[in-house]
Amino acid sequence: MLTLLSIFLALSASPSLCDRPQPHVVHPLRPQTGFSSRPNVYAVSCLSWRLAVETDNIRNWDVVPKECEGYVGNYMLGRQYRMDSATVANAAIEYAKGLKVSRRDAWVFDIDETSLSNLPYYAANGFGTMPYNATSFSAWTLEGRLPVLPETHRLYQELLRFGIKVIFLTGRAQDQTSITVANLKRGGYHTWHKLILKGTPYSGETALLYKSTVRTKLEKSGYRIVGNIGDQWSDLLGPTPGNRTFKVPDPMYYLG
Amino acid sequence: MLTLLSIFLALSASPSLCDRPQPHVVHPLRPQTGFSSRPNVYAVSCLSWRLAVETDNIRNWDVVPKECEGYVGNYMLGRQYRMDSATVANAAIEYAKGLKVSRRDAWVFDIDETSLSNLPYYAANGFGTMPYNATSFSAWTLEGRLPVLPETHRLYQELLRFGIKVIFLTGRAQDQTSITVANLKRGGYHTWHKLILKGTPYSGETALLYKSTVRTKLEKSGYRIVGNIGDQWSDLLGPTPGNRTFKVPDPMYYLG
Repeated sequence: MLTLLSIFLALSASPSLCDRPQPHVVHPLRPQTGFSSRPNVYAVSCLSWRLAVETDNIRNWDVVPKECEGYVGNYMLGRQYRMDSATVANAAIEYAKGLKVSRRDAWVFDIDETSLSNLPYYAANGFGTMPYNATSFSAWTLEGRLPVLPETHRLYQELLRFGIKVIFLTGRAQDQTSITVANLKRGGYHTWHKLILKGTPYSGETALLYKSTVRTKLEKSGYRIVGNIGDQWSDLLGPTPGNRTFKVPDPMYYLG
Repeated sequence: MLTLLSIFLALSASPSLCDRPQPHVVHPLRPQTGFSSRPNVYAVSCLSWRLAVETDNIRNWDVVPKECEGYVGNYMLGRQYRMDSATVANAAIEYAKGLKVSRRDAWVFDIDETSLSNLPYYAANGFGTMPYNATSFSAWTLEGRLPVLPETHRLYQELLRFGIKVIFLTGRAQDQTSITVANLKRGGYHTWHKLILKGTPYSGETALLYKSTVRTKLEKSGYRIVGNIGDQWSDLLGPTPGNRTFKVPDPMYYLG
């Protein structure tokens, strides 16, 4: 695990590494299969699959198609994921710059795959091609070693500078509060207005219902949610989505 | 114009042509500029820009960035656009297969860049890099020669087979009714339950307001909108979006 983390941190720290042609060290690459010269056959184009996932056209999927493991791995460890994330952050900052900020204004941040990254875990576990394993994922989370997602962190810093209140809203359970606080601080998120974890009243509820209910309560209590950023559409849809929403890439898993 | 159309139709008819490495004949290619080895610089990655447009992260844009003309042109005339469209159609068909269809069930289709294609026009006009020209675009529309988008047409045929009512809902003005009917039929859309063009009560209104108001009226009059497909987020957001929405790729223009 530590080795993987080192690899990831090395990649994060040295963009020049990411610029090389992309064979990565975690998994051997396979040729992409499933392409067909007849596009209207039910073949998997991993690039099309990823676009369909990012645009919410394909929903409720369990795992990444096996033939897309190499594609998703290269994307996530390579330069394009970082560029895509940078473009989202840039769009959000441009929008925020145009706001006349008031004391009520808040921005909702999701945590996993938005503010912090589970990529070291997924790199060791098939990049989303393997079924979710609650035991091993929970063990990984409790290590508190998720690296920061630098582009979202850049947005976070700009929003603080603009005087917008940062509210972290996560599907993590409340018994993970202390490790979550520690991991956020370790990642460079040193301050926030609220950190909301999933309490027992919502256990068993979908992310969509839980998060939109909480956002509605925030607005009723006086906040104006000027922005909302997450890697899942369930962070961004439903009642009270916020005045603008920003979808961070995540081709590794789906939460409804 | 006829030459361009011929090129496009030739590409559509012969997928093998599209499989070749992608230099196309309409515009000379330029190297993509604006890349940077430091991803957090405000540089344009055309691929990231397209993803951000497709996920509604970048909104209200006027024209395609000039440095992305070659990229967008290759994408639109090449194989990936067709594969991406096929993946959307496949996802929609899979969803429709699972429906227990009743007589109330309807599916809303947008027309331009969803059911029929203005690609011959855009290929001759910078692939969206040039400002909208109402005169020349209207002249092109009135020729009634838009080619069919074959993947959406495949979805249309399947939905008819399932007994779902097809409703075309377009931002085209009502005075374009007869050419629109002719072009739809020419493209292979021979039957529909309703064809709704933009009437004078909505002139000057946004696409989002117009389309969501019409959809709400449809539901109030007894239809159940089980699906909704369009190339613009303004086709798919707002009240009464439909039980499922499907976003067709369009990196050439934005309508709010």
